[in-house]
Formats: sequence, structure tokens, C-alpha cells
Amino acid sequence: MNYCSQCGEKVTLKVPDGDNVPRYVCDACGSIHYQNPNIVVGCIPEWEDRILLCKRAIQPRYGQWTVPAGFLENGETVQQGAARETLEEAEARVEVGNLFSLFNLPHINQVYMLFRGRMLTADCGAGAESLETLLLEESQIPWEQIAFPVILQSLMLYYQDRAKGEFQFHSGDILRLPESDGRIQIRMHEPG
Amino acid sequence: MNYCSQCGEKVTLKVPDGDNVPRYVCDACGSIHYQNPNIVVGCIPEWEDRILLCKRAIQPRYGQWTVPAGFLENGETVQQGAARETLEEAEARVEVGNLFSLFNLPHINQVYMLFRGRMLTADCGAGAESLETLLLEESQIPWEQIAFPVILQSLMLYYQDRAKGEFQFHSGDILRLPESDGRIQIRMHEPG
Repeated sequence: MNYCSQCGEKVTLKVPDGDNVPRYVCDACGSIHYQNPNIVVGCIPEWEDRILLCKRAIQPRYGQWTVPAGFLENGETVQQGAARETLEEAEARVEVGNLFSLFNLPHINQVYMLFRGRMLTADCGAGAESLETLLLEESQIPWEQIAFPVILQSLMLYYQDRAKGEFQFHSGDILRLPESDGRIQIRMHEPG
Repeated sequence: MNYCSQCGEKVTLKVPDGDNVPRYVCDACGSIHYQNPNIVVGCIPEWEDRILLCKRAIQPRYGQWTVPAGFLENGETVQQGAARETLEEAEARVEVGNLFSLFNLPHINQVYMLFRGRMLTADCGAGAESLETLLLEESQIPWEQIAFPVILQSLMLYYQDRAKGEFQFHSGDILRLPESDGRIQIRMHEPG
């Protein structure tokens, strides 16, 4: 951020009075421009014993597989956002169920929320951001080609829970720590 | 938003190619300025059979009671944010436990997440945004002076769960619908 989105003057990075975090502040009009994490919402769409995966038609991870997910928009609920992303990316209509996983990705200022989604029909298709979509049984999941660690971890937890016959809510952090040479670390939060 | 925060030129509101939502777009440098919901994180801090409430020292709802909560900051997890807000507003140290409630407030583009928090000691105090903080038993909760519907609803669910001897995760929407004359409507999501 270089300029004030209110008045167009230059902004400076400084800690405002009464605050303890540096913000982009406009000395001309006084606006403080807060920057906060974004929410990514998505679904694990279920049809009988299969789930719906999408092959990505966009970067990053073009050609790899994921569940439908994307940024929550203003004016919608997290459940509505999860259903919208499922319709846009996989052309599938779902009834959004329980929150299944919540992951913090603090290095990129994202909070991921994935819901279980009951597909209303088996219909699906490739939205603009997908090369193809497939309904897959557990044995067909392309584990080596899942696009993001947060999706891989959520799908592993999903099948662990399914084997136990009970789905629980899972929360954890996907961390990229400086001391780990940029590798990803996953820390699950234990239920309290 | 009037000006591009990248280059300082005027922005216009329009639907970018491949998108379906109007965004502030800079015709000079091509930047698209997305605006997305914010996350509010907080705690219900617990000490033995009491919980910690804060009397607000700021508007809105100056003088009314709430649990410690505030905007999630970049670079932190939702659990870290909930602990930080509890320290800042109530000068109390908590171990953040399970996610207790998630409420959508789509009319103000907020998603509220409240956790149960185990206080490490009974120490608390009034942070800069609080007039006072008190550890209260259920019979002492000032139900008529709770600052926000999302907090009132969460505390009611909290004591309902406590009476049952089991805390569950709750999700719902706090809606301000045009057809309701601006009154608040609460819709809980049923567990799937």
C-alpha cells in the first residue's frame, strides 16, 4: 500500500495512537487502513460413498486436485460461500452441513474453513477454474496430487473419521516457519 | 474507496473479466482491490464456575458488558487472536480451548468466532477498552446489559450447554433484514 484509498495522498506505515501494530496511515485525511486475514471457505461434497474433487485449471498448482473452496465475499455467510464455491468450481449443488475443519495459515493471512456438503444430486461439471471434476471413492483419491497441504490434511482427517463412523470438528495450524527452511509444519489443536 | 492504494489514481467500481462481483479496479495500473469479510475472535474466559465479562469503555455500547473479542490480526491464528484480545481487554491469561460458536454477521461483513478459554489464574483487570472486568456466576450475569446480540446469544447457548453438562459447537447467523425494519433476526444452523 502506497496511497490512501480515501483521498489519494501518500500513506506512511506507523503505529497509530492507542494501537500497538503498525498500520498504513494517511497524514492528509487521517484514515487508518487496517489489513486483516481473509477467510477461505469450501466444501467436501459427498454423494453416497464418494466425494467430489476438482482438477485445478488455474495457478498455483495447475492440474492438481482440490475440493471446491475460495475467498468468502462480503454480504454472505461462510455456509453460503462454501455452497457458492461448490457451484462455481464444480457445478454441484450442496446442502452445507457441519463445519469439519478450521485451519490457520498465518504466513499468508488466511483462515480456511471446510464444511461437509451433502450433494443434492450427482450432477457436477468443470467450472471456469476447473479442468474436470470427479466423484471418487476413497481408493481413487489421488493422494500424491492434492494441491494444498490444508486440503490434504483435511481429506486425511475426513477418511480417518469416516473409518471411525463419526465425523468430528478439527482445528489446526499450517505453518511455514523460518527455522524449517520454508517447509510446511502442521500442528493440530487437541480437543479441550 | 476512491483511489488506487498502489498507484494513487482514481478507481472505478466494475466487474473484472472472469469475475461476477463488482470490485474497485484501477484503470491506470490494473490493480483489483478486493474487499472481504473480517474475522472477530474472542473468548469466554472461565474460572471455576465463573466467567469473565468486560464493561465497555468505548463506543458502540459504552458501559455495556461483553466478552473479550476483537479483529483478528495478520500473522496470528484465531486461537492466538482470542488469547491476545483476552489479555488486552481483560488482562487475563487463558489457554484457548474448543471453538464454541461461529456467527455470521453478513450485514456488517463480519464472522465471529468465540472460544472457551481456561483462565490460568483468577487475575484480571480493565484493559484500555474496558471500564472494569468481573468474574461472574451465572446468577450475576447482567443479561439486560449485554452489548451485542452475538454475545448475548453465545452466552445463552453457553449456559444451556453447561446445564446439560456438555458443551457443543454452535453456528448461526445474526441477520438484519430489510423486511424486518432493521431488527435483528437470529437463525441457528442445525447440526447435520
